[in-house]
Amino acid sequence: MSKNITLSIDAMGGEHSPSMVVEGIGVVSHHRSDLRFILYGDEKKLNSLLAVNKDAKNVCRVVHTDEAIAEDIKPSQAIRNGSRNTSMRLAIQAVKDGETDGVVSAGNTGALMAISKLCFRTLQGVHRPAIVGLLPTQQGRCVMLDIGGNTECSAMNLVEFAIMGNIFAKVMLGVDNPRIGLLNIGSEEMKGREEIREAAQIIRESSLSLNFQGFIEGHDIGAHKVDVVVTDGFTGNVALKTLEGTAKVISKFVKDAVMKSLLLKLAFKFAPASVAEMREKMDPRKYNGAMFVGLNGVAVKSHGGADAIGFATAIETAADIISFKFNEKITKELELLHEKNKTEQDIAI
Amino acid sequence: MSKNITLSIDAMGGEHSPSMVVEGIGVVSHHRSDLRFILYGDEKKLNSLLAVNKDAKNVCRVVHTDEAIAEDIKPSQAIRNGSRNTSMRLAIQAVKDGETDGVVSAGNTGALMAISKLCFRTLQGVHRPAIVGLLPTQQGRCVMLDIGGNTECSAMNLVEFAIMGNIFAKVMLGVDNPRIGLLNIGSEEMKGREEIREAAQIIRESSLSLNFQGFIEGHDIGAHKVDVVVTDGFTGNVALKTLEGTAKVISKFVKDAVMKSLLLKLAFKFAPASVAEMREKMDPRKYNGAMFVGLNGVAVKSHGGADAIGFATAIETAADIISFKFNEKITKELELLHEKNKTEQDIAI
Repeated sequence: MSKNITLSIDAMGGEHSPSMVVEGIGVVSHHRSDLRFILYGDEKKLNSLLAVNKDAKNVCRVVHTDEAIAEDIKPSQAIRNGSRNTSMRLAIQAVKDGETDGVVSAGNTGALMAISKLCFRTLQGVHRPAIVGLLPTQQGRCVMLDIGGNTECSAMNLVEFAIMGNIFAKVMLGVDNPRIGLLNIGSEEMKGREEIREAAQIIRESSLSLNFQGFIEGHDIGAHKVDVVVTDGFTGNVALKTLEGTAKVISKFVKDAVMKSLLLKLAFKFAPASVAEMREKMDPRKYNGAMFVGLNGVAVKSHGGADAIGFATAIETAADIISFKFNEKITKELELLHEKNKTEQDIAI
Repeated sequence: MSKNITLSIDAMGGEHSPSMVVEGIGVVSHHRSDLRFILYGDEKKLNSLLAVNKDAKNVCRVVHTDEAIAEDIKPSQAIRNGSRNTSMRLAIQAVKDGETDGVVSAGNTGALMAISKLCFRTLQGVHRPAIVGLLPTQQGRCVMLDIGGNTECSAMNLVEFAIMGNIFAKVMLGVDNPRIGLLNIGSEEMKGREEIREAAQIIRESSLSLNFQGFIEGHDIGAHKVDVVVTDGFTGNVALKTLEGTAKVISKFVKDAVMKSLLLKLAFKFAPASVAEMREKMDPRKYNGAMFVGLNGVAVKSHGGADAIGFATAIETAADIISFKFNEKITKELELLHEKNKTEQDIAI
């Protein structure tokens, strides 16, 4: 059996904390016997939840704190000394101190990014960390980054995102040679913003072993034209949220149609297998767990509104990333990129 | 009865031209008796189509040309002298010469924008024309601009888009006081790119009578939080295409579920009223017709793949815009904006 993985959990982050944290751990422990957890948060609440969830109790240890990061706190406030004893900060610090292998939190995204950056620092060779997430497509799931870390990005930032996304897709999608695309407003070479065209050129001229497909457009995400969608954090965030919003619109149209027809209502009720499969595909909980890539430590952000199933998905994302030695692999690829660039600069001099 | 409106039609643009052009005119003429058309294109083909479509024949005149703008031509090539006799160029020129009131084309978007800009020039007070379109939401339709005209925009460009979008929404959605939002990655004041924050400030401090709702996020589009979504042409294009792609993904999930269950298949077949209503709401043809706003002339772009119903929608968009004296209203509002800015600059000096 492989070595156990220990995760620190910010047990007080998220709308449904801490109950969804304990329940989520219970769910995960059914099929992942290699996971152990240190929960940071209100001891009394956590112990009473663990008392009625033996599956979770067997794999958890609680570290008490009665402080938590507020949902509306700014990143700059989150990294001040005053937040040292919050459940989020303690959970991140445990990774830094080598007590745990990674952290999962459903708390304030900006605070989690800021504290993780402060404690972990960026990975060697990475100029900007990014947030990477999974999206539903016609053929399964794809990976997109950056989905909110950096509102503006240089060509080199985008190239680094492509490298990190490539490895993330290998782990999370199990694809051998992920197809990578740069999100743009046309597939022709001359289209779009300068940094995107420059990033495409750097990738094409590099010795990186990326399966680069060039530019893709918004509709290509759903069509699964690529496995990795590379973009800046502003565009990625808008695309992700537009996708979520549209899924809700179409679901509402279908629901309205079903509610207006007794026949359809009955058919939906008595066709459980195919309806269940459809619901499963559309279930946002299956896409939960955005990761901060490019940091010298593993930090996974669960959706703030996640329930136990959603939180369990985020935990598994963190575990998979750690088992795969994700960060070591990124460092190696980035050495290749920057080594080549350095050599070229030397020659130019 | 109000005065007749005459539209020039690029009859050779689009995948299904010229048949969908003639059929589309036939469809529109059933309920719009005030429209007349000059069709630019292959006389032989057009006359044989009109011979079997009396509704269209009664309201059309054909001007022959055997030249057309290619789908893959670049905007810079489209404005050269060599393209003077193409159906698109002639249709636009007719508006400029005062023969017609506006132009509709399903041809090459870049070419249409470039030739329209060249012939019409920008409207007084507009720094950058934009492309505006309609999107489906949970409560109906909303307006978004820019959806592809300008990959980068200044704060003042965005403010001008807000003014033009406001008037477009009044015409196309029939809303008295449209709610306007700037697309961003968070609703807090400090979020997002600088030009977006600056645009919000200019609108708030102006004497413009805009119903400004501040920042919105991607999911707010589908939730219909605002009637007008203001953004740069890069982000707008990505959001629009992501929305289209996601609608296809969800529709496929539903279709798959229906095909796998005989019960659901039958229910969908025998519940025609509510299913028809759902299909109607999801029908992309109902959202066809993107307009170039900010030009001193009316040019409407139909989707390249539009059929007769889609092309009919684009024709109606052009007709509505012309009846409403859209451009005159924009000019007046922009005078207000720039007058105030000028006064402030004078004071500053």
